Amino acid sequence: MNERVYNFSAGPSMMPLPVLEKARDQFLLYPGAGCSVMEMSHRTPSFERILQSAKDTLRRIMEIPENYEILFIQGGATTQFSMAAMNLASQGDTFCYVQTGQFATKAKEEGDRWGNALYLASSKAATYSYIPKVSEIPQETRFLHITGNNTIYGTCYNDLDAYLPSEVISATGAPSPIPLVADWSSAILGKWIDVEKYGLIYAGAQKNMGPAGMAVVIIRKDLLEKEADPVVPIMLRYSVAAKHDSMYNTPPTFSIYMAGLMFEWVEQQGGVRRMEEINRRKAGLLYEFLEGSSLFHSPVNPADRSIMNVTFTLPSSELTDAFLAKTKAAGMINLKGHRSVGGCRASIYNGMPMEGVEKLVELMKDFEKKA
Amino acid sequence: MNERVYNFSAGPSMMPLPVLEKARDQFLLYPGAGCSVMEMSHRTPSFERILQSAKDTLRRIMEIPENYEILFIQGGATTQFSMAAMNLASQGDTFCYVQTGQFATKAKEEGDRWGNALYLASSKAATYSYIPKVSEIPQETRFLHITGNNTIYGTCYNDLDAYLPSEVISATGAPSPIPLVADWSSAILGKWIDVEKYGLIYAGAQKNMGPAGMAVVIIRKDLLEKEADPVVPIMLRYSVAAKHDSMYNTPPTFSIYMAGLMFEWVEQQGGVRRMEEINRRKAGLLYEFLEGSSLFHSPVNPADRSIMNVTFTLPSSELTDAFLAKTKAAGMINLKGHRSVGGCRASIYNGMPMEGVEKLVELMKDFEKKA
Repeated sequence: MNERVYNFSAGPSMMPLPVLEKARDQFLLYPGAGCSVMEMSHRTPSFERILQSAKDTLRRIMEIPENYEILFIQGGATTQFSMAAMNLASQGDTFCYVQTGQFATKAKEEGDRWGNALYLASSKAATYSYIPKVSEIPQETRFLHITGNNTIYGTCYNDLDAYLPSEVISATGAPSPIPLVADWSSAILGKWIDVEKYGLIYAGAQKNMGPAGMAVVIIRKDLLEKEADPVVPIMLRYSVAAKHDSMYNTPPTFSIYMAGLMFEWVEQQGGVRRMEEINRRKAGLLYEFLEGSSLFHSPVNPADRSIMNVTFTLPSSELTDAFLAKTKAAGMINLKGHRSVGGCRASIYNGMPMEGVEKLVELMKDFEKKA
Repeated sequence: MNERVYNFSAGPSMMPLPVLEKARDQFLLYPGAGCSVMEMSHRTPSFERILQSAKDTLRRIMEIPENYEILFIQGGATTQFSMAAMNLASQGDTFCYVQTGQFATKAKEEGDRWGNALYLASSKAATYSYIPKVSEIPQETRFLHITGNNTIYGTCYNDLDAYLPSEVISATGAPSPIPLVADWSSAILGKWIDVEKYGLIYAGAQKNMGPAGMAVVIIRKDLLEKEADPVVPIMLRYSVAAKHDSMYNTPPTFSIYMAGLMFEWVEQQGGVRRMEEINRRKAGLLYEFLEGSSLFHSPVNPADRSIMNVTFTLPSSELTDAFLAKTKAAGMINLKGHRSVGGCRASIYNGMPMEGVEKLVELMKDFEKKA
């Protein structure tokens, strides 16, 4: 493969070409800095502007209110599984989870290390093919954690109110009694998120925000006031990251720069609501075809389908392998489903152009005809 | 500054031009992958080869024995301050530190969160201008932690045996009773390190190993056998990182790729011993000038001088500012000393060519003549 292909990887994933081109053109020399972004001291005005600009742009495109802090934290979403519990709860406290997939399960397992972590609902018995409803929540719970978009299974919280009790959903100026914590790794910037409903949102960068190795955290400022237990490492404290503007130690400077370019690109496209429109059309092409197909099948409850990760199956592993071979030969890669579930998955984040999805649907139609 | 300058930053720092050029040329399309390294799924053969090759090259250039594991871990050296304690000791255990500067102090502070962390020696009263000797160590200590090269103060452990008791220094096939743990962030690959003397070596990447946001960890395999306390987050467990070949979660793929290019470049230069020779000559130019100068002064005990970070002072803050303005005008940046100590500092890692140091010494001579 000596030219760029359509890359349906679940993450790290396809990035918009103009973003990559800009970063390439500035790779040896960032304007005015005398060096690459990678070589830049994080204590210079050049880098401080990069950081501030990335935060400002993200605040605009997500319409993040001023009472929320934006943090860039190393370690991906998995580190956030631990940080959410270690910062919002004291050791031994009760906090709750909804089991909607593998990452939701891992989040709860990290909670188990810290306190009394409970599942309030689960769709595990149905291979996570739907989003289960939570009707009641223990009053002493420190937070409720959800996985907004489930990358492996292709499900998504398309409507919070229908699935969660009112005690966890905040309104403007009225924080809910129990903060809602959400891992939006695989849909952030690809789907509109109403930040004010949450106490804490986090997302690994490697889907819609640049290179892997960093998470973006959006946290309501009142949640920073709780002093974490003394045993919590300094790098795992939200309050320390906030106090030092994500620079307690040397931050992942190049990742922040790349995220900033991704944010600018989203703004140039018309913002997150516009991205969602485009992504709905992309996903719509696939789901519409799947609905009418007698060969391909979507295992996901229609109301809970993700517009970022479209999962589908074929009747046999032979047909699946044959189909995947065809896609690869046609310049479409990484369509294999997650190793834990098999089947196929098309991850169609912001960086995947409409033409990539059109080409995939054409190939599916053609494959069905010949099968 | 619209051309590349000599960047004396302490980190992130100057990188070799051929490394940057290669990364730029592959930025949109990694050979055979159909996408950028940044967009590559970490579960593909392309990325697995990048990771394996980086590890293999590092093992060759540092001559890392097979009974040591190489890990790439997110979070920089500060995360290692916590991980060293949380993995090598149980909560409440005793472990020891040598206080040779700000980062050594921070390492011990993270130890304080976990157990009975003790200083065995300190040069704080002398503004860390020398490496203090440790003569005795409590037998129950779980490890002794040192900061190999002190970036801010320009000191270095140039000889372990002269400063540390024999109980902490291992020999081939004979692990010491107490493991030696060292933060070699600012000298790794720039100075020869005899890995077999240590139980654990770690280093933030952003000096000699690429972009900020990652640490390289070299750990003797028997130290992975201890099960960390249940409360330790999964991302902070060496045994988990080792079991999953640094891919328990999505690793910082682009950082690992860049580190691999840096390792290859060191190998092409003739290896780490050769880099040390070159760096000795670079540092020698500066120290020789400082010895003979009546205006510039090295505050560091001669035997403990770093070849990576050369600190020096001028008689007044006015002269310091005037000198720094001259360097900047001459295309040499980031020569200001760390904000906690003032003065000047030339960080001359592997990426700084000899000509940069020659140019700096010329300017110092000229400045002295005119002062």
